[in-house]
Amino acid sequence: MTARHILALSGGVGGAKLADGLQQACNDGRLTVVVNTGDDFTHLGLNISPDVDTALYTLGGVANPETGWGRRDETWTFMDTLARLGGETWFRLGDGDLATHVERTRRLAAGEALSAITADFARRLGIQADVVPMSDQPLRTRVHSDEGIFDFQDYFVRHQCRPVTRSIEFAQGDDVRPSPAVLAALADDALDAIVICPSNPYLSIAPILAVPGLRDALREAGVPIVAVSPLVGGAAVKGPTAKIMAELGVPVTADEITRQYDDLLAGFVLDERDAALRERIAVPVHVTDTLMRSADDRVRVARETVDFAKHLKARA
Amino acid sequence: MTARHILALSGGVGGAKLADGLQQACNDGRLTVVVNTGDDFTHLGLNISPDVDTALYTLGGVANPETGWGRRDETWTFMDTLARLGGETWFRLGDGDLATHVERTRRLAAGEALSAITADFARRLGIQADVVPMSDQPLRTRVHSDEGIFDFQDYFVRHQCRPVTRSIEFAQGDDVRPSPAVLAALADDALDAIVICPSNPYLSIAPILAVPGLRDALREAGVPIVAVSPLVGGAAVKGPTAKIMAELGVPVTADEITRQYDDLLAGFVLDERDAALRERIAVPVHVTDTLMRSADDRVRVARETVDFAKHLKARA
Repeated sequence: MTARHILALSGGVGGAKLADGLQQACNDGRLTVVVNTGDDFTHLGLNISPDVDTALYTLGGVANPETGWGRRDETWTFMDTLARLGGETWFRLGDGDLATHVERTRRLAAGEALSAITADFARRLGIQADVVPMSDQPLRTRVHSDEGIFDFQDYFVRHQCRPVTRSIEFAQGDDVRPSPAVLAALADDALDAIVICPSNPYLSIAPILAVPGLRDALREAGVPIVAVSPLVGGAAVKGPTAKIMAELGVPVTADEITRQYDDLLAGFVLDERDAALRERIAVPVHVTDTLMRSADDRVRVARETVDFAKHLKARA
Repeated sequence: MTARHILALSGGVGGAKLADGLQQACNDGRLTVVVNTGDDFTHLGLNISPDVDTALYTLGGVANPETGWGRRDETWTFMDTLARLGGETWFRLGDGDLATHVERTRRLAAGEALSAITADFARRLGIQADVVPMSDQPLRTRVHSDEGIFDFQDYFVRHQCRPVTRSIEFAQGDDVRPSPAVLAALADDALDAIVICPSNPYLSIAPILAVPGLRDALREAGVPIVAVSPLVGGAAVKGPTAKIMAELGVPVTADEITRQYDDLLAGFVLDERDAALRERIAVPVHVTDTLMRSADDRVRVARETVDFAKHLKARA
C-alpha cells in the first residue's frame, strides 16, 4: 500500500483498531484520524472525551488489549477510594486514564482548544498520525428513548444501552464547525482517500457528519470515500449498532449501512460473511474478512481498504 | 483522662499526630479538630486542602506512616501518566489521594461548603472526631521572601522552603469568618480545654488565628488554652519552623513560641530537652517528652496535655 495521505473518520473501539492498522500500513504516508466527540461529557467535574482517548491509547500502543478502551497496566486506586468517599462510580476511571482527563480539563479551562491539546497528547504518546477531534465546539449526542432523553454516556454506560432508542439527536450551538485541522487535511493535494471506519454509523459516525460543513467538505475533497462495514454476519462486532438499527426500524443488514452514508460513498468494504448482500449495494464493493482480532488483521484490513480506494480513484 | 469536649487547633503532620492521640484518648468525650486551610490551593484545576487531608487521613487511620502525609497503600499511576503527558508533577498526588481532591472539587463547584464536605468525608472514613476547616471562605498564606512572594505550597513544596522568609501574609477577602462548627464547638458548655497542637506557629496556627473573630472566640470560650511546643531541643521535629524563626529574627527557642500565642495561653507543654527554658515562660509549664514516634506516644502526650489543661481549669 502506498498512499500519500489518508483521512479516516472514527468512533471508539472498532474505528480505532482500523485507524491503528492504517497507521501501521501508512509507512511514509500521512494519516489524519478525525474522531467523534459527540460522546464527550463532563463527569466528576472532568472533561472526558471517550472516543478521542480510545484513539490516542490505541494509536499510542497503550490501550488495554482486553477491553479496547482504557489503558493497559491500569490501576484502580482512585475509583476504590472514590467509592469509599461516596462519589459516583458508574463510569470507571482508571488512575492513568485520569491523568488524561485532569490535564485536558486544566488546559481547556486555560483556554486551549481541544484539538491543540489532543495534538500535544498524541505527540507525547509518540503517535505518528494526526488525531483530530471533529470539532473544538461541543456537539452532544443524545438518545431519545422509551425511558426518556439520555446524554450519550448515560445511555451507553450507566444504562448499558438498555432503553429502546426512538431517535438520536445531535445537540449543538450555533458556533459548531469542523476543527481547522480537519478542513486543512481535506484540502491537502496529497489526500488519496477518505475511510469511514467500522464504527457505529448512528452513534459514532453520524455526529461527525452532523458537524455543519463537514459532510460537504468530505464530498468536495474529490477523493473516494470508502466505508468499512461495522456489521459481520448481520451482527455488530461490539456495541449496540444492531440493537439500535432494529429499534429505529431499519433492517440489520450491511447494505443498510451504505444507505446511511448515501451521497458520500464511492465504495464499501463488506464482510465475507455478508457476501450475499453484495447485489443490494449501489456502490462498488470489496469483500473480505473484516474481523480484526490481531494486529496483523488490522494492517490487512487497512491495506485492502486503501488499495480498494486507490483502485476506485484510478478508475474515476 | 476524662474530658467532655476538647477543641484542638492543628496544621499538618505534627498537629494531626496529637489530634489522633486526643481522639484515641477521648473515650466517650468529644473532640473537635479545627484545621488550617491557609495552605489550600488550586492545582491541576483541583481544590486541594493539604492540612485537612492530613487530618482526615491520620484520624481515619489511612495515613502513610512513613511520610505522615498522603495515604497508605498508595499507587502512583496517575502521576506517572501525567508526567508522560507533560503535566506538572512538582506536587505529588497519589491515585487514592486524588479521589479526595476530585470529589471535593466537584462538591465545592456544586455549591457545598468545605466544612460540610469535610464532615461527610470524616463520617465515611469512620472518624469519631469532628474535623472542621477553620473557615469556609478562602484565606491564603503567602510567604514574602528574598525571591519574591509565593503561595504557600509553591514555597513549601516546589521551592522546598529554600527562599528566605521576610514576612508572612494571610490574604483574605472581606467575607472570611470562622466555620459555624468552630463557633458552635467554642460555645459548647461541655468544652473543657483548647489545645494548640505542635504545628508550625507561623505557618499553620497563625492562619487559624488570623480568621477574623476566631482569636476572640477562643479567648472568650472561657476554658484553658494549652499549646504543645513544636520545638524539641531548639529544633523543629519536621518542617521549617526553626528556619522561619531564624529568618524572622526570632530566637529559635521554645519560649518564643509562647510569645507567638501571648494573650491566649493558659499553659505550655515544653519538651524535656528544653526544660532549662522553663523560667523564661510566663505561663504554667508542663515538661514531658513531646516526641511522638509511636501510636502510644501520641496517646501519652495527648493525655498529659489534657490532664494539664484540666488541672489549670480546676485551679482557675
